[in-house]
Amino acid sequence: MCDICFSERGEKSVVETGDLLMPKFDHDGLIAAVVTDAGTGDVLMLGYMNAEALKRTIETGEAWYWSRSRQSYWKKGETSGQVQKVHQILTDCDQDALVLKVTVGGNGATCHVGYRSCFFREIDATDGSAMKLKKVEADRVYDPEDVYGKS
Amino acid sequence: MCDICFSERGEKSVVETGDLLMPKFDHDGLIAAVVTDAGTGDVLMLGYMNAEALKRTIETGEAWYWSRSRQSYWKKGETSGQVQKVHQILTDCDQDALVLKVTVGGNGATCHVGYRSCFFREIDATDGSAMKLKKVEADRVYDPEDVYGKS
Repeated sequence: MCDICFSERGEKSVVETGDLLMPKFDHDGLIAAVVTDAGTGDVLMLGYMNAEALKRTIETGEAWYWSRSRQSYWKKGETSGQVQKVHQILTDCDQDALVLKVTVGGNGATCHVGYRSCFFREIDATDGSAMKLKKVEADRVYDPEDVYGKS
Repeated sequence: MCDICFSERGEKSVVETGDLLMPKFDHDGLIAAVVTDAGTGDVLMLGYMNAEALKRTIETGEAWYWSRSRQSYWKKGETSGQVQKVHQILTDCDQDALVLKVTVGGNGATCHVGYRSCFFREIDATDGSAMKLKKVEADRVYDPEDVYGKS
């Protein structure tokens, strides 16, 4: 018996169309997690989880990640208050990616530079020498400098 | 002069809030691309692009990927007709992930097992020995065996 158990990877057809969770972690032990707003459907961020972070997420209903830059567990919102309450977790056919539908706590922003979504810029036209980006969110939810000071 | 040029990675603040596309490709030369339905916002798949695949996507307006399993370029829909017309490409704060908003051609499915989205299953409760999956799409758009025969 165990509360949060992942099954061993099985036959291709079982992985792709079966009813057992058999997540595939990459050579760094990670699986990609696309995070979307449960209300609007907008993509908020892309994070990475190891097996333990995924277990904590399922167990607590709040999103945990593995920070590749800090090489440590990272409960989203632990310091910022932007906790992600997880409503649904989907997996794809080969079970090497997840989608988390969440509600964001605190001030409602997800991006550490202050925007609602980390995907706040779109690829725009080229100016002839470089591809440019254009903001799709007009204003930030908050100014991180006001909260954390200059970084 | 060049039509599709990516700028070299710059200062953190320039990458995170600037107006130049400076994609970060990982140690395999890849960047993750979350693909969403431009109409519904639903996440359809997660693919990976190298620099050339991203250039082809921007240039042609149709999505190209790098297939990690086949180690080759992969124009989505080339054989299935499920071509992805790209309406918008977003990048995140650290520019190591993309979101593509697309319209799917052909029969409208994205998943090779026949569903509209590759994320057609959600993580359900545990049965006490393993986490189970439950379908969120009731029916497949098509049966791949009808098209390609038994694999």
